[in-house]
Amino acid sequence: MNETIELMMRHRSVRKFKPDPVSEEQLAAIVAAGQMASSSSNVQAYSVIAVTDQEQKAKLAELAGGQAYVNECPVFLVWCADLYRLKDAAARHLPEKESYADSTENFMVATIDAALASQNAALAAESLGFGIVYIGGIRTRIEEVATLLQLPDGVYPVYGMCIGVADQETGIRPRLPLKAVLHHNHYQPAQTLEGVQEYDVTTTEYLKERTHGERATPWSELMAKRLTEPARMQVRAFLERRGFLKR
Amino acid sequence: MNETIELMMRHRSVRKFKPDPVSEEQLAAIVAAGQMASSSSNVQAYSVIAVTDQEQKAKLAELAGGQAYVNECPVFLVWCADLYRLKDAAARHLPEKESYADSTENFMVATIDAALASQNAALAAESLGFGIVYIGGIRTRIEEVATLLQLPDGVYPVYGMCIGVADQETGIRPRLPLKAVLHHNHYQPAQTLEGVQEYDVTTTEYLKERTHGERATPWSELMAKRLTEPARMQVRAFLERRGFLKR
Repeated sequence: MNETIELMMRHRSVRKFKPDPVSEEQLAAIVAAGQMASSSSNVQAYSVIAVTDQEQKAKLAELAGGQAYVNECPVFLVWCADLYRLKDAAARHLPEKESYADSTENFMVATIDAALASQNAALAAESLGFGIVYIGGIRTRIEEVATLLQLPDGVYPVYGMCIGVADQETGIRPRLPLKAVLHHNHYQPAQTLEGVQEYDVTTTEYLKERTHGERATPWSELMAKRLTEPARMQVRAFLERRGFLKR
Repeated sequence: MNETIELMMRHRSVRKFKPDPVSEEQLAAIVAAGQMASSSSNVQAYSVIAVTDQEQKAKLAELAGGQAYVNECPVFLVWCADLYRLKDAAARHLPEKESYADSTENFMVATIDAALASQNAALAAESLGFGIVYIGGIRTRIEEVATLLQLPDGVYPVYGMCIGVADQETGIRPRLPLKAVLHHNHYQPAQTLEGVQEYDVTTTEYLKERTHGERATPWSELMAKRLTEPARMQVRAFLERRGFLKR
C-alpha cells in the first residue's frame, strides 16, 4: 500500500500518555494539516482550543466524566463547531438581513467542518509519532465545558482529543466487515445485517481474548443497550440556547 | 515533514475527471481505510453507497444541482449517517425498551462517524493518486436522494464524494490564518476576528489572480451573503421524518 494508508490501518485509541510535550511547532503543523481538509463552500466553520494549562485540563478531565488521560496528555484539543466568525461577518456587512445561523443545515455544516479538520489533525499527529483519542465525554456536561472555555454564542464543543506520546501498547480493534458498511448503487439492508451477524462472532472472540474470558458480549447486544439508554439528552436545549438548531 | 502531512498540504478539490476507473480493490482499500477512523463507542454509525451505475449517477448529478462532475467521475460515494444497524440490534435484543435513536446526541454521533470515516477515505483515495471533491449539494433535494438510494429509516445522506483521476490542475486555496482557528486554553474572539481581517486581504488577492481581476470579494463579505440566505431549510423536516433529531 503506501505510508498514509498504512498509518490509518495502524490506528488505535491511546488512553495512557508519557509526559513528553507536543511542541508549539508540532501543534501548529497538526492544526495546519487539519485546516487543509475540505470545508463546505470554504466557510471553515470550526475552531480548536489547545488546552495545556494544567488547571484547565484537570477541570475538563472532571467534566468529561473523570477521564484521567484528559489530564495526563500534554495537549488536550477541544474541537468546536464555530459560526462566530460568520455571524460577525453578517452583522458587519449585512446588518439589515436576517441570519440563518440557527438552521439545521448550518449546524451540520459547522459540525462536519470541525469533524473533517479534526480527522486530518488526528492523522497528522499520528504521522508525527503521537497517539490520540477522541473524547465525546465532554458533551455530557457540555454547558459547563462551553463556559469554562469562554465559547461565545454560535460556537459549541463537538468533542475533545488527547494528543501525546503513547505509554501503552493496545491492539487494533476489528471493524465491521466491509460488506456491512459498503453498499453498491443503493442501500442493501440484508447485506448490512449479514455483516452484523459475522461481526458479532468476531467481536465476541476479540473481547474474550482481550479480557481473558471475562467479557464476551456480541457487538449487536452492546449496541442494543447503548441505543436504549438515554444519553446526553440535555445537548439539544444547550445547542438551542447557543443559537443552533432552531429550525 | 512526512508523506502524510505533505499529502494533506497538497489537497485541493477536483471537479474534472478522466474516465479511468477506480478498481474494486482500490475502492475496498479506500473504504477499509475509512473504517479505521475513530468511532464513538465503536458504534460505526455510517454507511457508504458507491454509485457506479451510469443512470443512478446521472440522476444524482441532477439532484445535486446539475453538477457535471458527479456524473463524470467513475465512482460517486454517498456517505450516510446510519442508525439502521443499531435500531435493528435494539429491536432484536431489547424489544421492550424505548430507543433513543431520535435524540440530538445520536444524530451527532452518526453524522460525526460518517465524517471521520469519509475524511480518512478521502485521504486514502488521494494517497492512491486520485482526486476528490465533497458534494454537499445532495442535501438540497435530500428526500429524493434518500428515495433514489433506497435508504431505510434511520439513515440519511450526509454528502457525496466524487473520486477519480484528476483531469485538471487547480491551485491550493489559502486557508484562514492559524490564529483565526487555533486558540489557547480558552476562546479568543479578538484574535479570531483579527485573523479574518488578514484573510480578507489574502482572499481578495487570491480571487483577483484566479479570475483575472473579475472577482475580488473579501471572504467575510462572501460569508455574510451565505449566512443571510436561507439554504436547505427543508433538511430539518426530512430528518425528523426519517427518525432523527426529534428531541
